Amino acid sequence: MDLKASIDQRIERCLPKISEEPRIIHKAMRYCVFPGGKRIRPIIVLEACKACGGKDKDALTAACAVELIHTYSLIHDDLPSMDDDDFRRGKPSCHKKFGEANAILAGDALLTLAFNILAADLEPKTAVKIIKELSEAAGTHGMVGGQVLDLATSSLPGRGTDPEGIPSRKGRGINYLKTARIFEAAAKIGAMAAGASGKKIKAMAGFGINFGMAFQLADDIADKDGLGFTDALSARREANRLIGKAKESLEIFGPRADGLAKIADLLLT
Amino acid sequence: MDLKASIDQRIERCLPKISEEPRIIHKAMRYCVFPGGKRIRPIIVLEACKACGGKDKDALTAACAVELIHTYSLIHDDLPSMDDDDFRRGKPSCHKKFGEANAILAGDALLTLAFNILAADLEPKTAVKIIKELSEAAGTHGMVGGQVLDLATSSLPGRGTDPEGIPSRKGRGINYLKTARIFEAAAKIGAMAAGASGKKIKAMAGFGINFGMAFQLADDIADKDGLGFTDALSARREANRLIGKAKESLEIFGPRADGLAKIADLLLT
Repeated sequence: MDLKASIDQRIERCLPKISEEPRIIHKAMRYCVFPGGKRIRPIIVLEACKACGGKDKDALTAACAVELIHTYSLIHDDLPSMDDDDFRRGKPSCHKKFGEANAILAGDALLTLAFNILAADLEPKTAVKIIKELSEAAGTHGMVGGQVLDLATSSLPGRGTDPEGIPSRKGRGINYLKTARIFEAAAKIGAMAAGASGKKIKAMAGFGINFGMAFQLADDIADKDGLGFTDALSARREANRLIGKAKESLEIFGPRADGLAKIADLLLT
Repeated sequence: MDLKASIDQRIERCLPKISEEPRIIHKAMRYCVFPGGKRIRPIIVLEACKACGGKDKDALTAACAVELIHTYSLIHDDLPSMDDDDFRRGKPSCHKKFGEANAILAGDALLTLAFNILAADLEPKTAVKIIKELSEAAGTHGMVGGQVLDLATSSLPGRGTDPEGIPSRKGRGINYLKTARIFEAAAKIGAMAAGASGKKIKAMAGFGINFGMAFQLADDIADKDGLGFTDALSARREANRLIGKAKESLEIFGPRADGLAKIADLLLT
């Protein structure tokens, strides 16, 4: 079974069934989680675990928790009072399909469930390490903080990009909090699930941060038609540089980290 | 220091300072948590811990986590798409003061922080037990589920009350999920923090459920001017019966549970 299929199977098992009451909320949760996207965050968890000598099964719950948290953030980000997106992955966004209240609650429930499965499934010492890392990455010094800053600055012209098309210092801060912090956590908790040393966890943090910053840039390049040719070029160059740095962080892991290196390379194509 | 003061001090310590970026979200979180209400849920955590032979300091983090989760639920419940309340505890509700997006994110952040402090502060085995219990109580088979059902049925006439003024079966189910389940968790995690046996944890569950159901009834009696004299009378009788049951659950703890018994009695006055 490939990684995405293992992840989907694990997520399937941890979500309440639609037949359980209240059905509408379980329906909404599943609607947003499946079929989902590329599952890149949970795949990074599994590959980071492998790079540290662990097995997929050691990290599947942690991988699943990251994806639940990512999905919750998409649901809340799409809300009318936030980014106001009517569509997500080619279908109506959660609040369009189930109403705003159920969308808010589905996000809340996915966030809550992420911590539940970690506490329920993992050996206690590993569980608390991972819960601590993930909750920091998802909180006001991570994802939530990034969304707050993003909303606060998105009405200002030229908020995130300086004249060279590279995100400005402020934009870079937002990109770290909103996007890269959770990639950092994904790589770190993969290592934690493998029982890796502090040195290896730190190296994984380096991979995750640089990969995450490049990921946001790639997203900007793909999204923003408004990005001029020169801007796009320099953003591409910066993404290349970041991916190079991400791969440097992998050196201490040797060939076991080939999976992660491949994911990094794929981002640039 | 009385219990409320110890709880407030612990909450104060775990919340990010307003001077930390992004300030607006830390301001919003503190605005909702302070001065707060009677802190009855965290006080139950501390008293349950004491009843099981534990010390306040063993249970303070768990108490604080329950209050953060309670506060998050109030913020989200008040939102325009939910109960649409402009005021909470005599001041503008979070979304009225900070805008809807920041209110949603402040709730998200408080929920996330609750799990963070449990994982960061407690001995791992106790931490995972408590995180598991709290996340179940807060999820779709608890608080979130109750809010979903409440919203789904609140537009129907006579939703929760049968002709005798006692909540109907459906209303009782909602009251359990929305209100009593978190009281059950509060009492149980107090016992868990004290390292209590399964038997004692179960007895605390009995206390929490019955107290919580009575709490919701008392709230209904106080709130609903529409409740006729006979209805109010039978609701009062039912609350009395529930408090009696709650106190029965405390018998195995002896005089150490006097604090909890007193809280139960106070509810009826």
